[in-house]
Amino acid sequence: MRTKIILDLDTGIDDTLALTYALGSPELELIGVTGTYGNVTVDTGVRNSLAILELFGYPEVPVYPGITQARAKESFEVLEISEFIHGHNGIGEASLPEPTASARTESAVEFLVDSVRAYGDELIIVPTGPSTTIAAAIEADPYFAAHARIIMMGGAVSVPGNVLPWAEANINQDPEAADLVFRQAQDVTMIGLDVTLQTLLTTKQTQIWRDLGTVGGHFLATAADYYIKAYEVTSPHLGGCGLHDPLAVAVAADPSLVTCLATNLKVDLSGPTRGRTIADESRLNSSVKTAQVALEVDQERFLEEFMARLSTLAAATPALERGLN
Amino acid sequence: MRTKIILDLDTGIDDTLALTYALGSPELELIGVTGTYGNVTVDTGVRNSLAILELFGYPEVPVYPGITQARAKESFEVLEISEFIHGHNGIGEASLPEPTASARTESAVEFLVDSVRAYGDELIIVPTGPSTTIAAAIEADPYFAAHARIIMMGGAVSVPGNVLPWAEANINQDPEAADLVFRQAQDVTMIGLDVTLQTLLTTKQTQIWRDLGTVGGHFLATAADYYIKAYEVTSPHLGGCGLHDPLAVAVAADPSLVTCLATNLKVDLSGPTRGRTIADESRLNSSVKTAQVALEVDQERFLEEFMARLSTLAAATPALERGLN
Repeated sequence: MRTKIILDLDTGIDDTLALTYALGSPELELIGVTGTYGNVTVDTGVRNSLAILELFGYPEVPVYPGITQARAKESFEVLEISEFIHGHNGIGEASLPEPTASARTESAVEFLVDSVRAYGDELIIVPTGPSTTIAAAIEADPYFAAHARIIMMGGAVSVPGNVLPWAEANINQDPEAADLVFRQAQDVTMIGLDVTLQTLLTTKQTQIWRDLGTVGGHFLATAADYYIKAYEVTSPHLGGCGLHDPLAVAVAADPSLVTCLATNLKVDLSGPTRGRTIADESRLNSSVKTAQVALEVDQERFLEEFMARLSTLAAATPALERGLN
Repeated sequence: MRTKIILDLDTGIDDTLALTYALGSPELELIGVTGTYGNVTVDTGVRNSLAILELFGYPEVPVYPGITQARAKESFEVLEISEFIHGHNGIGEASLPEPTASARTESAVEFLVDSVRAYGDELIIVPTGPSTTIAAAIEADPYFAAHARIIMMGGAVSVPGNVLPWAEANINQDPEAADLVFRQAQDVTMIGLDVTLQTLLTTKQTQIWRDLGTVGGHFLATAADYYIKAYEVTSPHLGGCGLHDPLAVAVAADPSLVTCLATNLKVDLSGPTRGRTIADESRLNSSVKTAQVALEVDQERFLEEFMARLSTLAAATPALERGLN
């Protein structure tokens, strides 16, 4: 039986790769996408998710708009650095046909809560942006906190952050929400920069997609190349772009890709290290550990799986019209 | 064959427990002690080391005074918090006969460098205080950096610090020295708060030493009880005192007590998180990993070993004169 999965995306470029990883994974059944803000606004992210689902042949997957800004804020604006990394449209200025389907009118929080009530252990929720909507689901229903299985992209425990030396971008957008998730959710796997910065994609791989000669391959290559170029500026020491969000989905399909530390987490909310993910010292010797922090990754096997799944998915899309490649 | 070991101690209370752990370990041959500052001054620490070695029947082990203050500082004064935790004399106001032996006149740096040249892989160096003397040995001889096997107590990667939310006491005393060690030494195991705060000693155990009715048992119980009482004030959530320094020695005797993450470390030297131990992002994807960070510990087995070794050692000391217990 396939594992049901819900993705909570702020659909920029690596969210795109996460979404297509899920569609290309025979172990996973994507039952819905919820939209958060971060790389882009909720509106742009939802539009991108709908368009990508249609492009790759899954127009039936429902998309639910989530909460539009952080708990401690009144509004959200895309940061300059996010726009530099993901492009103005969130998908590296690649062009996608306008989606024909619309977002659902039911709230993302309601969908998350109902899904955990309906499927329990058979469902994994994979948030790849700020934790605002997930935190709201926890507050909406104690059953959600107790039973949701969450594999989230976010945080940095053993390595420096990416927006500040102590803070990773998703956590930094809404530290209060992430802290609430870590303190109340009973089953959280953290896929942070500790492992995602070890998973690097280069233009050697994206050329394989481009060479498929399909609309899907062309789209993935164009978006990913934009992302790789941004990394050449922001993180030249890496020699590629980090596959942050897809790794979280990959772990949902195959947990053996990472090695985790069992602990209890918190987020620093005050003081100079606001936004830091770290063990909660007050629960250090508790026999109950609610978090698994991924610290090691089999990056070769992951990259093989990543390329195989996305290439197969992209190969099945229509042939590209001449002159576009 | 026994593994040769050198301890670099700032002989406060847990250093005392580390020193006696080494003396009580059949796998280890203590070939010397070097003295650093931190819990106490170098002078006080050296005096304590000499007195403890004599009390437990090892007057022949040489003790070498090391560097007396941090690289970036002109002098050293014991912090109020250190005095609160370790007592004015560093050993919880327990009284020890003045040692009859004196410290060696050869420098600690020279002894460290010569020992690594002489014994190479057969030697483990266990620093339990600030890294100043070890850093000086690295600078004095490239062979030392390349060949010294170092198992150090210090740092905090996955858990908050103890003197600041991001800094552990030993690293915080001399961040530049610790950073130099992490960047240049090729084989460092970090035994930090990640694991040492999981190893707790309580008065239930110290009573066992007291009940031995020997001078050694009485001394260990008196010193450790002082330490436990300080922890009741500084860290009431723990329910005991952390066996920081002894765990580093225990890992030298039996590496299987901890599970480590292989990485490359640095210390933040500037900005608000000065003193933080964290992976060096510029070497994150290097195939060479010079550090092992202990993140999990078999605390039950360690505590059993700890009690067995120290109790056997203390039992072999002379009977306590009546009226002292």
